[in-house]
Amino acid sequence: MVEINSGYLDLVPNYLFKDIADKVKALKSSFPKAEIISLGIGDVTQPLPKVCILAMQNAAAEMGKIETMRGYGPDFGYPFLIQKIQKNDYQDVGINIQEDEIFVSDGSKCDISNIQEIFAKNIKVGITNPVYPVYRDSNIMAGREISFLPCREENNFVPEIPEEKLDVIYLCSPNNPTGTVFTKDELSKWVEYAKQNKSVIIFDSAYKEYITNPELPKSIYEISGAKEVAIESRSFSKTAGFTGLRCGYMVVPKGLNGYTENGEKISLNKMWARRMATKFNGVSYVTQRAAEAIFSLEGKKQVSEIITYYMNNAKILKQALEKMGYTVFGGENAPYLWLKVKNGSSQEFFSKLLNQAFLVCTPGSGFGSEGEGYIRFTAFATRENTMKAIERLEKVKL
Amino acid sequence: MVEINSGYLDLVPNYLFKDIADKVKALKSSFPKAEIISLGIGDVTQPLPKVCILAMQNAAAEMGKIETMRGYGPDFGYPFLIQKIQKNDYQDVGINIQEDEIFVSDGSKCDISNIQEIFAKNIKVGITNPVYPVYRDSNIMAGREISFLPCREENNFVPEIPEEKLDVIYLCSPNNPTGTVFTKDELSKWVEYAKQNKSVIIFDSAYKEYITNPELPKSIYEISGAKEVAIESRSFSKTAGFTGLRCGYMVVPKGLNGYTENGEKISLNKMWARRMATKFNGVSYVTQRAAEAIFSLEGKKQVSEIITYYMNNAKILKQALEKMGYTVFGGENAPYLWLKVKNGSSQEFFSKLLNQAFLVCTPGSGFGSEGEGYIRFTAFATRENTMKAIERLEKVKL
Repeated sequence: MVEINSGYLDLVPNYLFKDIADKVKALKSSFPKAEIISLGIGDVTQPLPKVCILAMQNAAAEMGKIETMRGYGPDFGYPFLIQKIQKNDYQDVGINIQEDEIFVSDGSKCDISNIQEIFAKNIKVGITNPVYPVYRDSNIMAGREISFLPCREENNFVPEIPEEKLDVIYLCSPNNPTGTVFTKDELSKWVEYAKQNKSVIIFDSAYKEYITNPELPKSIYEISGAKEVAIESRSFSKTAGFTGLRCGYMVVPKGLNGYTENGEKISLNKMWARRMATKFNGVSYVTQRAAEAIFSLEGKKQVSEIITYYMNNAKILKQALEKMGYTVFGGENAPYLWLKVKNGSSQEFFSKLLNQAFLVCTPGSGFGSEGEGYIRFTAFATRENTMKAIERLEKVKL
Repeated sequence: MVEINSGYLDLVPNYLFKDIADKVKALKSSFPKAEIISLGIGDVTQPLPKVCILAMQNAAAEMGKIETMRGYGPDFGYPFLIQKIQKNDYQDVGINIQEDEIFVSDGSKCDISNIQEIFAKNIKVGITNPVYPVYRDSNIMAGREISFLPCREENNFVPEIPEEKLDVIYLCSPNNPTGTVFTKDELSKWVEYAKQNKSVIIFDSAYKEYITNPELPKSIYEISGAKEVAIESRSFSKTAGFTGLRCGYMVVPKGLNGYTENGEKISLNKMWARRMATKFNGVSYVTQRAAEAIFSLEGKKQVSEIITYYMNNAKILKQALEKMGYTVFGGENAPYLWLKVKNGSSQEFFSKLLNQAFLVCTPGSGFGSEGEGYIRFTAFATRENTMKAIERLEKVKL
């Protein structure tokens, strides 16, 4: 008799966004002609940069000729892409990361959910509340108990350093869902905490391109000593519209160690390399060429235009919501707006928007108990739909 | 202090093919001008079918226009691809598989290594010896003990039904590395065994397109009752040269159950759906369009030409090796040749070929203890290199 992984029984029945998609689908079948606008799931709407399209078409053509076709690529990514990441995302901002510390992947969701595999089952995991559900669910699936770090309005949605010793802590900045961004001081405290406790920080900076304030850190490695305690995960999804292409990367510094039961140091870089060589087979060559193109001069210009477009959405939406009397967080160095619901629960507010205005948001309670009383809006819709959403919001009866 | 997953300490230091790649790299640096021929790692050399190139270029163009760009796709694959798989790979050969039993992925290696996650840690896992290392390593990483099922010449490299009760059994046909293909009778015995013991068979049929004998089963679902006990994994890598693109699929039938500690039935289809929705984010839209194109009339013709090309390599290589006095298995309904080493170990034979002939094979011992005394050749080289390899083999001093 084959026994199942009982961790799965402790999950809520559906992955959050699948649950919302099902509700929207149900509405669509009742009102087939309804024009539903989504500011819910953080999916992009703008076309990919032109440089990426061209790079993909050229790469596809290469695959059709025997002289230039490519089979299995390097497990951790092609050097042409790794070197561009190393230079542009790190070296140019004064951070020294080596090529073999960068692992190209098919996106942040996979990296962030798989990284826990290299740790023991009995480690203490610290996760903010509210949170991107993947941190939580991947650890529940692995049978771990989680310590939640509340992020509330009174703390500016920044988790406080806990008294207890946590072994692995997931931090996300710019934050999904609250739109909060760590200051260097706040992040330094966490790096210090991790050093003292020999903990590891999983730093998710998928939205780093949305930081406009130069005082705010885009990488955890801007904090001195972070390379001894932190893994950094990044994605091209929200940078250049790769949600449908799948490419990201993770940095696992060689100075970062875990420990055996007996206290022997083990390189986490080597463990992750082993994991990726054994259970992954690289990212499509065509996709890696598209990712490389983002780092060209023309690519950077095109990416910057897309980011500006979405950030203007965020600005327009935030101003309009505040004019309607809502309290709104985020939306300034982040593509997410965290709106305080006026009365009722997150779910009730979600249902009102969906049913009265055919408008999709994400109920804050889906991100954890501390998300109750909030909903998340994204800035990733088209300008037209963002404006329409505002018009509809003005008419909703609460 | 963050403790590591001790399962990793039980692995051999390097993933097999990475180890070989390192040795080849070392040789290259000693003899920069040497023309090294690889019949080692099972990587393809023929360009992708033209229909796939065109499909990718069109899909890339779509991603560049706001009207047609696609963000997140369905977690389990686009219906356009799932329906083609359902019809061509199953319905047309008389097997009824439903759309929501098919999960499109970024390749067999990922599926095969991730599937063990949905089972309890304490299950008994049965793995053939020799074996594709991923079955073994993914279970060692998860901390499981493995029962090995020896596949020897005297049994025609087919594992015998064991006395003990195994909960999950990995079977691969056409087999990597031995090139053996299960007959319907042999496979039926395993299905019967799994039914009796409430076990699950993970059936890896990545090489099914290489079966030319119509009596041999391409799918485990050709065996009556298999949908109650088997998961089937398939890949476009060896079918249409997708090793550098990454696309495959897994079938998890809805009639397949696991059990809680208390004996309660749990749908494995639902568990896998939860796993994929939580820890995966779909395959590149561009890649899925390429995969879809394989199933067009023109696509099937182009795929068939590629398969014939490789199978002719296998035939030529096998005949030449037999003429040289070697005993060779496989290579008839499989792209792998399993050669009995005349004297010395697998590793010694590997080193002789590499150093004397600049020819790469895979030492059988890398696939498990029962692989000792054998080496694996692949049929995936170009014709030209296959012929050159034969010439060089004739001159090797054993």
